[in-house]
Amino acid sequence: MSAPVTTERKANVEELAKAAKAASRKLATLSYEKKNAALEAVAKALEQHAPEILAASAEDVREAEALVKSGELSQALLKRLLLDAAKLAEMVRGVRAVSELPDPSGQILERRLLDTGLELHKVSCPLGVLAVIFEARPDAVTQISALSVKSGNAVILKGGREVERTTQVLVSTMRAALANTGVPADAICAVYGREAVAALLSMDDRIDLVIPRGSNALVQHIQRNTRIPVLGHADGVCHAYVDSAADQAMALSIVVDSKVQYPAVCNALETVLIHQKIAATLLPLLMKRFAEKSVRVRGCAHSRAIAPEIEAISDDEWRMEYSDLVAAVRIVDSIDAAIDHINRYGSHHTDAIITTDATAAQKFLDEVDSANVFHNASTRFSDGYRYGFGSEVGISTSKLHARGPVGLEGLVTYKYKLYGSGQTVAEYAGPKRKKFLHEK
Amino acid sequence: MSAPVTTERKANVEELAKAAKAASRKLATLSYEKKNAALEAVAKALEQHAPEILAASAEDVREAEALVKSGELSQALLKRLLLDAAKLAEMVRGVRAVSELPDPSGQILERRLLDTGLELHKVSCPLGVLAVIFEARPDAVTQISALSVKSGNAVILKGGREVERTTQVLVSTMRAALANTGVPADAICAVYGREAVAALLSMDDRIDLVIPRGSNALVQHIQRNTRIPVLGHADGVCHAYVDSAADQAMALSIVVDSKVQYPAVCNALETVLIHQKIAATLLPLLMKRFAEKSVRVRGCAHSRAIAPEIEAISDDEWRMEYSDLVAAVRIVDSIDAAIDHINRYGSHHTDAIITTDATAAQKFLDEVDSANVFHNASTRFSDGYRYGFGSEVGISTSKLHARGPVGLEGLVTYKYKLYGSGQTVAEYAGPKRKKFLHEK
Repeated sequence: MSAPVTTERKANVEELAKAAKAASRKLATLSYEKKNAALEAVAKALEQHAPEILAASAEDVREAEALVKSGELSQALLKRLLLDAAKLAEMVRGVRAVSELPDPSGQILERRLLDTGLELHKVSCPLGVLAVIFEARPDAVTQISALSVKSGNAVILKGGREVERTTQVLVSTMRAALANTGVPADAICAVYGREAVAALLSMDDRIDLVIPRGSNALVQHIQRNTRIPVLGHADGVCHAYVDSAADQAMALSIVVDSKVQYPAVCNALETVLIHQKIAATLLPLLMKRFAEKSVRVRGCAHSRAIAPEIEAISDDEWRMEYSDLVAAVRIVDSIDAAIDHINRYGSHHTDAIITTDATAAQKFLDEVDSANVFHNASTRFSDGYRYGFGSEVGISTSKLHARGPVGLEGLVTYKYKLYGSGQTVAEYAGPKRKKFLHEK
Repeated sequence: MSAPVTTERKANVEELAKAAKAASRKLATLSYEKKNAALEAVAKALEQHAPEILAASAEDVREAEALVKSGELSQALLKRLLLDAAKLAEMVRGVRAVSELPDPSGQILERRLLDTGLELHKVSCPLGVLAVIFEARPDAVTQISALSVKSGNAVILKGGREVERTTQVLVSTMRAALANTGVPADAICAVYGREAVAALLSMDDRIDLVIPRGSNALVQHIQRNTRIPVLGHADGVCHAYVDSAADQAMALSIVVDSKVQYPAVCNALETVLIHQKIAATLLPLLMKRFAEKSVRVRGCAHSRAIAPEIEAISDDEWRMEYSDLVAAVRIVDSIDAAIDHINRYGSHHTDAIITTDATAAQKFLDEVDSANVFHNASTRFSDGYRYGFGSEVGISTSKLHARGPVGLEGLVTYKYKLYGSGQTVAEYAGPKRKKFLHEK
């Protein structure tokens, strides 16, 4: 196999975005059946071309192993990019699972009879062209492609450079498969190299949504360097507030689960806020549980007076996302102080209150300005699969468009289709005007 | 009355935005009844303080009249800022009408039982703080304030400088009225002067949505100079495509209505596209109708060969929004050429097809990438009131969040509230895991 293209000139990326836009227009008119038939063709092609895909991956892995040896790549990242026959089969199953999801596009969301022979439909429709920039995961290539085709969007993929060969073979296999279906091959495109990312981010006339999947630094870089809307979140600084009226055993169990069940993910807890009334009894118990799980604890002066093993923390560090077995603890005077802390230092992702007081819980759920607000449950429930959405394209902390865990509906917008029979606005103006019916 | 403050330092605007954010948190928890009681208090106060309001307006008008004499202000603008007792009474009725609208916030949009004692609610909630930058219209001050309070958002108003005195008295009257209700006075704030706009646009941590109402230049300036989401549209370059299978009488009637019924507004037509098969018969008839209405016509070479009085147009000028009695005409070879023209030169606002061919109509409605796509109806129907939305906060050409005419629902987002009873994610992981119910 020849070496993959590692740089793309802006002009090339522009041509490709133009082709993707044209493909998206075609794709927007296709039926549920045609899109699903295309996904089945893609699944079959991935099965048939398994040998080439695995061979390309083996090359990527060989190169990555060398980088691990020289210390340029982590063992964790190497593990993520490994691809064997079993994992490929799982990826194929994933493509077929997407084809079973309901079509998010073409749904009539509202229907209004403005007047006889003048009917307004609000209809969901694809966004157009998505640009998805993701880390070195071969499975993301096929999953993102399937979700895009299903929702009627063309996609431009930019994967991590450590899986470039694999990405290239996966993409060319899927494009070849599409060629024999109603979906244009340009519905799935890929670019390679950092320069291509800069080029993509500049094309706000051709690309409708950017979805970054990866490190905080990557997401923040993208959010700051494009005028295209970005779906996602940079940080996950999640909190649990243990109220004075909490069931303490429940509090310990939820806090520990939120922190340790999978500390590397965005919905894991970073900071525990404890009401001062119960701090003296709860904090020592919590420290014991944290110690059992090797959680390092940092905290405010008040907490350190109760548990001297707690390390000091500076004011700005309340904003930190540890993504590791480290937790921050702060003792607060009131639920209002807890809410203020969360709204000030949090990332508007997921925050929980533990209390038996329903009024306090409702206040917290109303006033905490986050996408996900929980009463007596672990922050780790904040997830499209746990919410029962079937698929998840990301978790958004933006308030516009989709917020929280986002399923396929985050990849569509809507348009108003008005079906008339020759009506003019002049008929509905002036003294002898016709009246609107406005029947739902 | 003392002269209004005409500049605000950034620090002042920041303090004010902070106060508005705090007020928005309070407002987000208020009931439908409390918000409506506050709107009634506002309406009453506006009635009681009519003399001061009209006096302030008279001063604004006196100054504006001098500017009209010296040619610095147009007669049309002067007319917009005039305020008399009847218009003020209408503004008060407007506030009461908003209180009758259903509450867009606090609605449970979805309810899902994840497991026994673990219930997920998707609940609509206010965005937080709105910044609304608008032209010199006293009625906009009260209407925007009422819509904001109703939807549970705090608002920072920046009105045109020609109504600064009126705005100040209206805002202080409304704030004083709120002081005796559950809604904090800081839910309605105002800033003055250009520097204040720049300051507002920089506060993406405090302001959740910017709504510009005014000229294209204003909207574009705002879109290019802020990281805060902007609701609205800069251009309204709307098209009517007359298909080869059109009823020609209907086509003439719709095209003329779209162009002349109110040419200054965003949903008025700018360009007529005519299928070449019918151009030779339709165009002369259309030219006659346009001449009767004093519409100047510009067009492509093909159209000028049929009607030599048509003026030439350059390629870039297809993007022009005339907002006046000027229309562009282009003869196209096919429906695909028409769709391409619209997607390339249009502003994704409102576009219509006139045809008796249902398949062609469906193709046009699916493939034209605009917020509003019409079959056999005037582009002028694209409007929140005509659509039956009760109120309109603007027309959006963005695909994310609200698209097309936007009612109160454009001022809310949603959050996921999860009501648990101590659940941890660890219980739903591992070999002996509990299963989710995911009942809707």
